[in-house]
Amino acid sequence: MQELEERIARDGTVKPGNVLKVDAFLNHQCDVALFDHMGAAWAEHFAGKRVDKILTIEASGIGIACMAARHFGNVPVVFAKKAQSINLDGDQYATTVYSFTKQKEFPVIVSKKYLNAGDHVLLIDDFLANGKAMQGLIELCRKAGAVIEGIGIAVEKGFQDGGKLLRDEGYDVDSLAIVDAMDPETGSITFRR
Amino acid sequence: MQELEERIARDGTVKPGNVLKVDAFLNHQCDVALFDHMGAAWAEHFAGKRVDKILTIEASGIGIACMAARHFGNVPVVFAKKAQSINLDGDQYATTVYSFTKQKEFPVIVSKKYLNAGDHVLLIDDFLANGKAMQGLIELCRKAGAVIEGIGIAVEKGFQDGGKLLRDEGYDVDSLAIVDAMDPETGSITFRR
Repeated sequence: MQELEERIARDGTVKPGNVLKVDAFLNHQCDVALFDHMGAAWAEHFAGKRVDKILTIEASGIGIACMAARHFGNVPVVFAKKAQSINLDGDQYATTVYSFTKQKEFPVIVSKKYLNAGDHVLLIDDFLANGKAMQGLIELCRKAGAVIEGIGIAVEKGFQDGGKLLRDEGYDVDSLAIVDAMDPETGSITFRR
Repeated sequence: MQELEERIARDGTVKPGNVLKVDAFLNHQCDVALFDHMGAAWAEHFAGKRVDKILTIEASGIGIACMAARHFGNVPVVFAKKAQSINLDGDQYATTVYSFTKQKEFPVIVSKKYLNAGDHVLLIDDFLANGKAMQGLIELCRKAGAVIEGIGIAVEKGFQDGGKLLRDEGYDVDSLAIVDAMDPETGSITFRR
């Protein structure tokens, strides 16, 4: 998606340790007009698929998932939680994933009320690197018996293996920008063509 | 806001300990059409005010803030973070608040890049009870020198003192539903008229 690539090139910054900071428009400050265009791009890619629900994970996925839902007939957005809370009672689907960003394991939890057998689900997240968070969402869907129609990603780090693993498993992964290389010395970012 | 009150009456559940669960449509599963109408209601209430930016706090505030931003000319949404991350580097405004829901203290952090002196800010959150999270956002704005134009809340627990304290301090608080009483025995919910 050209608009997103241009925005990453302009406002993204490359940090040592394979960190791509896009907090100016994606995951701290949010450009909702861009989010709207991203939702339209996913709707075009996944046109013809049945999408009953969008599943994402807190926190950065929520804004893009909500904006995207408008392009899928205002389907419900469910966001998996990363911590227990007294607001999360009753039966849950839960798994555990490791976050390289936070450098710790965290739970991924969704209430059984909001993910059901036979739901046709679109998974959305802001980043795909090693794919641990996405594998957590897939595990929740597997436990629920929900059907995964596709995976929409804003920024994929193509030099890490999360995207390849998901595509090898047969998932339709639509990453709006795939970064194949980046250089913290020069700040240069190379997108997959 | 009649639509929100009706939805709370229909799909909300009252639990012992003054817990009002609205996870069916507000803070776990998200009804984006409802969020859109909530944004329109805030835009009507705050019409004529200058709003350069919406500030909210992860995670439940993000979806409603992003949907609301469309009604304020697609202004940027900034969400304060509740934990340190390697994605949060550089200068930050930070404070600490106590969460009764999570039963612990947590940091509230925003990058100095995304909250600036002279910004006219609308604060948005899903819930207002004792007001600790909102006081945290206000503290970040005070540190930044940002101007708070108003506070948009989805559900205010009117029997807790957060709303009163904010209004006594002079803030224009627009709560779309104010629950004055609720009964876990009968499930009844009384809204402020």
